[in-house]
Amino acid sequence: MLEYIAFDADDTLWHSEAHFGEAQAQFRLLMQQYLNGSYEDRYLQETEQRNIQHYGYGVKGFGLSMIETALELTQGRISPEHIRFLVNLTKELLAAPVRVLPEVEAVLDELSGDYPLMVITKGDLLDQETRFLRSGLSEYFRCLEVVSEKNPFTYSRILRRHRIRPERFLMVGNSLRSDIWPVLEIGGQAVYIPAPGAQEPLPMDDSTPGQYVRLGSIGQLPEWLEARLLAA
Amino acid sequence: MLEYIAFDADDTLWHSEAHFGEAQAQFRLLMQQYLNGSYEDRYLQETEQRNIQHYGYGVKGFGLSMIETALELTQGRISPEHIRFLVNLTKELLAAPVRVLPEVEAVLDELSGDYPLMVITKGDLLDQETRFLRSGLSEYFRCLEVVSEKNPFTYSRILRRHRIRPERFLMVGNSLRSDIWPVLEIGGQAVYIPAPGAQEPLPMDDSTPGQYVRLGSIGQLPEWLEARLLAA
Repeated sequence: MLEYIAFDADDTLWHSEAHFGEAQAQFRLLMQQYLNGSYEDRYLQETEQRNIQHYGYGVKGFGLSMIETALELTQGRISPEHIRFLVNLTKELLAAPVRVLPEVEAVLDELSGDYPLMVITKGDLLDQETRFLRSGLSEYFRCLEVVSEKNPFTYSRILRRHRIRPERFLMVGNSLRSDIWPVLEIGGQAVYIPAPGAQEPLPMDDSTPGQYVRLGSIGQLPEWLEARLLAA
Repeated sequence: MLEYIAFDADDTLWHSEAHFGEAQAQFRLLMQQYLNGSYEDRYLQETEQRNIQHYGYGVKGFGLSMIETALELTQGRISPEHIRFLVNLTKELLAAPVRVLPEVEAVLDELSGDYPLMVITKGDLLDQETRFLRSGLSEYFRCLEVVSEKNPFTYSRILRRHRIRPERFLMVGNSLRSDIWPVLEIGGQAVYIPAPGAQEPLPMDDSTPGQYVRLGSIGQLPEWLEARLLAA
């Protein structure tokens, strides 16, 4: 029996990587003008990784990292108009329409009658809150939890706060590292639904603290839950 | 009788405006080089205000707004090295040491024995979390709530979440608009402690939904709470 089901948001409920991917493509085009085609996407990713400790996850940090990368790679030759272009690109990412993934709304409509649902997501606080509201999905959820990192500690804190027993908590998400492993580690349950077109994940090592279920799409979730109930 | 006491963080528990003020002073010096001394602080403030809807409160949005203001005011004449200076200024603000205000630690030490305490603050999630941990004060608090806006809705949500009755909730802070008025509006209690050197606030209009108490410093809080208990 489950007391609560939680969903990751970005690329579980709505598109996210696609928007970042479009921004990265624009950034790539811009950098190639300055670098005679020798730009590689990893330059931006390395700046982002280095800055996570300062900025955390989210669009604003991504924007600041684009500007920093551009200054570095062009050795200061980037024009101010192009810096302004990067500031605008950041704002466009924040204002981008929320594109809900297929089957999501029907699944939430069905499950919210049987279980309390919540969203647990990383990123900028205001950005994730407005995205949640603009998605049109907020009515299906009891609450939204925006966290700076998804690790066993943050999941434990959320479960304590809502008085949920770990063994009766199910997390659904597209990231093994953020949505699945830390939840298994605190004794919770997890359903892994890879984003369409995502790379095959690395196999878990032997220290993995439990098992998770993998579904091909979120549309299979209600049936899986029902079969589980019948088997119990 | 109180069930819970909540404290604002920035300029209630530790210095914040002073750090922003130093960054603004550096920004002013830079802009005056380009604008022959005709720069005014309100230019940056206007950009920040306009961008709140995109960025929310916090250091990362402040940094992006500095860059945008510099590009606008110099009409693109700002040098890339100076943009890099603004990126670094943003990171320095995030990494700045947390300077706890006088009397704060003694007051928290005393009160945390008698009441559960929490912090309610606006700003960037990761930034406020690390500031909370770096302050050395986290042991006195049951929890930290970072919100995107302090209004009656957000306070109601926090109280529901912690099962606190509004009439038994006390908020302590330095901002009438963020810490006092919305708490009175939902039936809570509030103690206003102006930051040292802060401007005198405007008087409340007649629609103010309750009364608040004003103390000269946080050091007076335990005595005020005790006098209230004796009078009850």
